[in-house]
Amino acid sequence: MKTVVAKFGGTSLADAGQFRKIQAIVKDDPSRRYIVASAPGKRFAEDVKVTDLLLRCYEEAASGGAFEESLSQVQGRFAEIIAELGLDFPLQEEIALLRAHLQDAPQRDYVISRGEYLNSRILAAFLGFTFVDPEWCVCFDGDGRLDAAMTRRTMGAALRPLKSAVIAGFYGADMNGQIRTLPRGGSDVTGSLAAAAVHADLYENWTDVSGLLAADPRIVASPKTVSCLSYRELRTLSYMGASVLHTDAVLPASNEGIPINIRNTNRPQDAGTLIVRRLPRGEARHAIVGVAGRVGMSVIQVEKVMVSDESGFAAVMLDILKNQQLPFEQCLTGIDTVTLVIRSDLLARCREDLFAEIREKLDPDYLGLTENLSMLAVIGDKGTETCDANVRVLQALAAAGVPISTINQGAGKLNLLVGVPEEKYEEAIRAVYAAIDDPADALAAD
Amino acid sequence: MKTVVAKFGGTSLADAGQFRKIQAIVKDDPSRRYIVASAPGKRFAEDVKVTDLLLRCYEEAASGGAFEESLSQVQGRFAEIIAELGLDFPLQEEIALLRAHLQDAPQRDYVISRGEYLNSRILAAFLGFTFVDPEWCVCFDGDGRLDAAMTRRTMGAALRPLKSAVIAGFYGADMNGQIRTLPRGGSDVTGSLAAAAVHADLYENWTDVSGLLAADPRIVASPKTVSCLSYRELRTLSYMGASVLHTDAVLPASNEGIPINIRNTNRPQDAGTLIVRRLPRGEARHAIVGVAGRVGMSVIQVEKVMVSDESGFAAVMLDILKNQQLPFEQCLTGIDTVTLVIRSDLLARCREDLFAEIREKLDPDYLGLTENLSMLAVIGDKGTETCDANVRVLQALAAAGVPISTINQGAGKLNLLVGVPEEKYEEAIRAVYAAIDDPADALAAD
Repeated sequence: MKTVVAKFGGTSLADAGQFRKIQAIVKDDPSRRYIVASAPGKRFAEDVKVTDLLLRCYEEAASGGAFEESLSQVQGRFAEIIAELGLDFPLQEEIALLRAHLQDAPQRDYVISRGEYLNSRILAAFLGFTFVDPEWCVCFDGDGRLDAAMTRRTMGAALRPLKSAVIAGFYGADMNGQIRTLPRGGSDVTGSLAAAAVHADLYENWTDVSGLLAADPRIVASPKTVSCLSYRELRTLSYMGASVLHTDAVLPASNEGIPINIRNTNRPQDAGTLIVRRLPRGEARHAIVGVAGRVGMSVIQVEKVMVSDESGFAAVMLDILKNQQLPFEQCLTGIDTVTLVIRSDLLARCREDLFAEIREKLDPDYLGLTENLSMLAVIGDKGTETCDANVRVLQALAAAGVPISTINQGAGKLNLLVGVPEEKYEEAIRAVYAAIDDPADALAAD
Repeated sequence: MKTVVAKFGGTSLADAGQFRKIQAIVKDDPSRRYIVASAPGKRFAEDVKVTDLLLRCYEEAASGGAFEESLSQVQGRFAEIIAELGLDFPLQEEIALLRAHLQDAPQRDYVISRGEYLNSRILAAFLGFTFVDPEWCVCFDGDGRLDAAMTRRTMGAALRPLKSAVIAGFYGADMNGQIRTLPRGGSDVTGSLAAAAVHADLYENWTDVSGLLAADPRIVASPKTVSCLSYRELRTLSYMGASVLHTDAVLPASNEGIPINIRNTNRPQDAGTLIVRRLPRGEARHAIVGVAGRVGMSVIQVEKVMVSDESGFAAVMLDILKNQQLPFEQCLTGIDTVTLVIRSDLLARCREDLFAEIREKLDPDYLGLTENLSMLAVIGDKGTETCDANVRVLQALAAAGVPISTINQGAGKLNLLVGVPEEKYEEAIRAVYAAIDDPADALAAD
């Protein structure tokens, strides 16, 4: 039998109705053995997440103020779920423990982790699964950094003997037993760690959308959902700032080649988005899967005749960036030129020093700066293989009157990066989306 | 009045008939005050250049052999020119001096420079111009390297007082008065140095073709002549291996912003190719001026998830190349990847060591090598401004079924570099040429 790790996010666990949806989903497929749970999220737009209520409790307590009202809101959220589900759960005892902790030198990470802790215990009771506290098996080092290797072993040891379990997301503990929370990706990371630890066949990430969109819906009206994409394509989306699984939440599963399926708790009939190591050959997927972008970029161009005949020019340039502690987004060396794409906000901090150092060390024939650029990433590992698709994208930009500043396409299955003026950013996104939405593209895929 | 420096190449000075063409050209425009002359070149395909005859004299003499037959061939070439032009020239005395030198520890550079020396003296006599010996004003340092700064001053001092002069190309002398020849570009460099020294308005380079061609005529049937291109475009052509003016022959003039005009001595009615610092705005020139390429390239792709979040990955990569003393042609960094274009012959020398060092120092997720690639340069500084043109080129490649491996277009007015498989190289050149030969492109230019 297959083993699936299913992580449910905050909105999927916001109230008793959502718990019942989860119960149906879990019952629907017995391979969903390990469930990772978040704290209750928002039930409606103006609602407050339980984790935020807990943070308020902590801040009130830490500053010596009254925290009872906030704590009672926390208690109320859980009490409602327990009552509606008709569970027998020692909520008052748990709240009493938390109150005692808050009264006496409260620890932030401990307090804000109680949402996941309680919600997971309630979900375990509701599903009849074993509760696994990540305090025992999600391991942090003394500096508060996740110890992924140790976690893998301890989580495997904790989960594999169990037929089914609910693990609380978001936190773990260091070697002194002190609770530590995950800085980025939160429960998504816990789920990914669990999937890797039990060698799961699939890591399901249940949320409130039916998958990743092919473009930013604030720019493109009703973009399509992406059916399947590679880890690398996802990483590009994430790098470009799309709100997707954080790289930290992808790596544990992706290192094991475990597919990740983004699903919608409210629409379990939707297949969602599948994230895989390699795209299946027969997949009738578009060569280009989506478009994303980042604004606020600048381009520095350094030119010196015959640098291509000398080695080291580009290396000196990167050394200068290192001196200035200025990271770069892209570096393109051509014949006698080096082009650097840099975040404008970071460049602003050291621009004059940087230019002075370039002039001093490289004595360039030309040193140019182009500001107010945005970078588009045309997401599609297959784009390079079927270069028609990438070319059609560039053509669409040209046809839309969007000037193309830089074009960067490395070898292999890589995403295409294109620089365009910031005032044309949204237009460019729409033009690329229209080009990839073209039915001709579907035919171009293998 | 304008001042023009006109350099005439070997075929332009191969016989008396060619001397008469030069006379007509010089008389046609009195601003052609400073003439730089090569040694007599080939009169027909199987002919031997005088410089090669002189090299034979030197080699025969240096090895203690008989050189009289070779020397008499040299003498014969000049005697014929002098006789046909009806000049009074002390050829026998000059040959006697050369013979004496050859008999007693001959110096290679001195011997092979005598072709330019004698031809320039004969041309000066024929035109009624002053002869200027570069022994006096083209200055080399003790290591035999051209001293461009000193040459500029001494050439200016030698030429500017003269109304008109013929300067011998190809050689100069070091501070001990020993004759030294220019390693690359030869007389083209002398002409460029002279143009810079006299602040010429124009440097004419007279040869046996009516300018630069938009593509390699061995691949494209009857390519067009380029009317006007920038120094940078020329440099790209030169880098790509096209047989054009060497960079050393362009730099002295281009540093002064002096336009260079490539003309045909046999067809003075042709306007030739004008090489300028900045393309004139109103010029009805194609945005893309030509296409060139280099075969024998390999692409290394190094990928590591999240390198974009750390700095230094690309810098370490360039450091590794430096350790291996391996120059690279292009470096493209993208999200989590570095792509390097490297000459296959250079890579072959250190491939295993290089890959071992990359694995050791970078521990990449993926390390790929693509061989048998060629790099196309789409020559056109204006290509980026009017991005339609570059996009149309990519589209033409896609339409021709040429897979595109890498695309590199830096910001600003830069040439587009595209990697294609070597077996598609000629097809790709033809496809790009057809795209730029499109009348639509002429309309796209500003």
